[in-house]
Amino acid sequence: MPTQNALDLIARGADEILKREELEARLKLGRPLRIKAGFDPTAPDLHIGHTVLLNKMRQFQDLGHQVIFLIGDFTGMIGDPTGKNVTRKPLTREDVEANARTYADQVFKVLDRDKTELRFNSEWFGAMDAADMIKLAAQHTVARMLERDDFAKRYASQQPIAIHEFLYPLVQGYDSVALKSDVELGGTDQKFNLLMGRGLQEHFGQPPQIVLTMPLLEGLDGVQKMSKSLGNYIGIAEPAIDIVTKTMKIGDELMWRWIDLLSFEIGIDEAKRLQADVAAGALNPRDVKLRLARELATRFHDAASADIAIAGWHAVVRGEGDTSLLPLSEIAVPAEGLRTAALLKAAGLTASNTEGTRKLGERAVRVDGAVIEDPQRVFAPGFEGVLQVGKRNFARIRLVAEG
Amino acid sequence: MPTQNALDLIARGADEILKREELEARLKLGRPLRIKAGFDPTAPDLHIGHTVLLNKMRQFQDLGHQVIFLIGDFTGMIGDPTGKNVTRKPLTREDVEANARTYADQVFKVLDRDKTELRFNSEWFGAMDAADMIKLAAQHTVARMLERDDFAKRYASQQPIAIHEFLYPLVQGYDSVALKSDVELGGTDQKFNLLMGRGLQEHFGQPPQIVLTMPLLEGLDGVQKMSKSLGNYIGIAEPAIDIVTKTMKIGDELMWRWIDLLSFEIGIDEAKRLQADVAAGALNPRDVKLRLARELATRFHDAASADIAIAGWHAVVRGEGDTSLLPLSEIAVPAEGLRTAALLKAAGLTASNTEGTRKLGERAVRVDGAVIEDPQRVFAPGFEGVLQVGKRNFARIRLVAEG
Repeated sequence: MPTQNALDLIARGADEILKREELEARLKLGRPLRIKAGFDPTAPDLHIGHTVLLNKMRQFQDLGHQVIFLIGDFTGMIGDPTGKNVTRKPLTREDVEANARTYADQVFKVLDRDKTELRFNSEWFGAMDAADMIKLAAQHTVARMLERDDFAKRYASQQPIAIHEFLYPLVQGYDSVALKSDVELGGTDQKFNLLMGRGLQEHFGQPPQIVLTMPLLEGLDGVQKMSKSLGNYIGIAEPAIDIVTKTMKIGDELMWRWIDLLSFEIGIDEAKRLQADVAAGALNPRDVKLRLARELATRFHDAASADIAIAGWHAVVRGEGDTSLLPLSEIAVPAEGLRTAALLKAAGLTASNTEGTRKLGERAVRVDGAVIEDPQRVFAPGFEGVLQVGKRNFARIRLVAEG
Repeated sequence: MPTQNALDLIARGADEILKREELEARLKLGRPLRIKAGFDPTAPDLHIGHTVLLNKMRQFQDLGHQVIFLIGDFTGMIGDPTGKNVTRKPLTREDVEANARTYADQVFKVLDRDKTELRFNSEWFGAMDAADMIKLAAQHTVARMLERDDFAKRYASQQPIAIHEFLYPLVQGYDSVALKSDVELGGTDQKFNLLMGRGLQEHFGQPPQIVLTMPLLEGLDGVQKMSKSLGNYIGIAEPAIDIVTKTMKIGDELMWRWIDLLSFEIGIDEAKRLQADVAAGALNPRDVKLRLARELATRFHDAASADIAIAGWHAVVRGEGDTSLLPLSEIAVPAEGLRTAALLKAAGLTASNTEGTRKLGERAVRVDGAVIEDPQRVFAPGFEGVLQVGKRNFARIRLVAEG
């Protein structure tokens, strides 16, 4: 691929490339570049927001470069040395390895396993002594470190910053030296730490790495960053039907953004064409969203599961096709059954009985496509069917007796 | 000795004791306390200003306590890791040992060799790894470190502070943990670093050390701190006659201060009595000064040398006794000899020929007690005699031919 096309692909969705002309020159060297991305050693449970970075790594792999998946276990095995955070216990070597396996189970849905170098920074930091750490600490100034946004804010508001917190960005920076990385990828929130590597590499006689930051993905709401605690996420381990259903609910604006950051199939040029077609009224945005939903479901499951999920979505939401294709969840209920509002809550379709009762009043609840309004209706063990709240919230369930 | 008397002796001349009541309680334990004082590993060349601290250590020894002479070689062997100070090269193990011998030659003129534990902090820091250093760094905050005067000033004036400089006070503090010190002694300028030990000892489950700071000794001028670069010092390796001569030149006010900080022979109570006698006109302060001069000359040489130096001082300055007791310095001069002003400069009695010529005009120059005024007079190889400028600057010299 010509350098310019490779550059365009790499730059797609990226927030910043420091510096683009350096990246261009490095790409022209014609050798595989060493692409570093660092990950927390604590147990990961990834959502598609995390895969924005993985996708960028995958693009580099597809361009023939060497991707390094670095697990920062050295500091993880130290834990919280201030002793204030009792939940941040030091990880053992076994914890680190178990977490690395958990990562592997997930990230190789995106990354090419054969083209990924898995490394742990304890490899070099475990061999360093106290004097080495002092020498490393000498490579940056207090003032420079206090320029980092969160440090500046904490210092200004007189919240304590323990001195070792100044060492961690240097540890991350030194990883680039140890790995001789050409490019480091990270979220926009990591920019300061990524830049650390440049100065240290120069100090150690290496050409400074290029820094590429990826934006944080907006969640289902299109406003907040995708996060577990906000509930606006799609976990990569979720069933294909949930990936499809949730993706189909996002707004059209957000869809274009997601395509830039998450899609391999819809390239830069095609995305532009599709957007123009939608703007001209020649294309229903729902059909673009269906392509994206199918791509994501395929990535995290497989093509067959994605097909079934898409068909299920059509069956329920559009009333086209066979709902028996939908995956079935079993819900345990008391022998005497549950009333409608309680069942909706148990199926995860509403947050409370009150909400369920309100939805019944609004004629927004359906069972197998038919509106029901009776709050007293009881669903007993043995019941099987598709429950639906509103247009796009649904679940195919079977009730079984508790115990 | 009762605790109160021991406390008074320890407190004599001290700038601050943190905290005095803790020291009192520790003294009452009845066991030998561990008294720590840290020294630079770079080649020392001590003047009597440095002995203020050594004297305090000696007092602790005389009270039965265990004194630890700690050489901070760990950081010395790192050198200047910023690479900016090329003159601060890393010391080798051999350098450290040679410097320790140089220290020993000097400090055991004050300290009791048999009651001194000589330690090097590389003993414990050499065994620490990078993770240990990070854990140590976690024990203090950036804000706390920026409270240190010199850091605060540099930060405020935007002069760079390298991050490892924040680690050095922690290294010094941890030495107290490793040594289980009860008391740490240091100059007033070291107070912040000495206090570091307290917090770290508590973190490691030890009772915090008491910190005792000693003032910096004023030099011969009575105004500036004694220092080599200011030229207002008495080196402990200087000849006895120079120790006596220089001591006899200090002002009366400074004499009382020196007695507090430098004399063992003139105790607290006697110093008070002497001061009262001088104030009442019953005692010539010169006689007190002679006692102090003799004590210092004896300490750094021996009683016989001190006697000779005192006698020499009397012979020249007071015209009493035999100047042949004065130590003789040989000065190499050209075969044709030197004129008076040039000779005064060569003998170190004036700073320049101009000053010598002026002193001649003032009738302030004597040879063997007789005023000379002739600037053209030539002193040839073979000359021997006492040259004198003013009342108290003199030297007994012999001229030899150069080459």
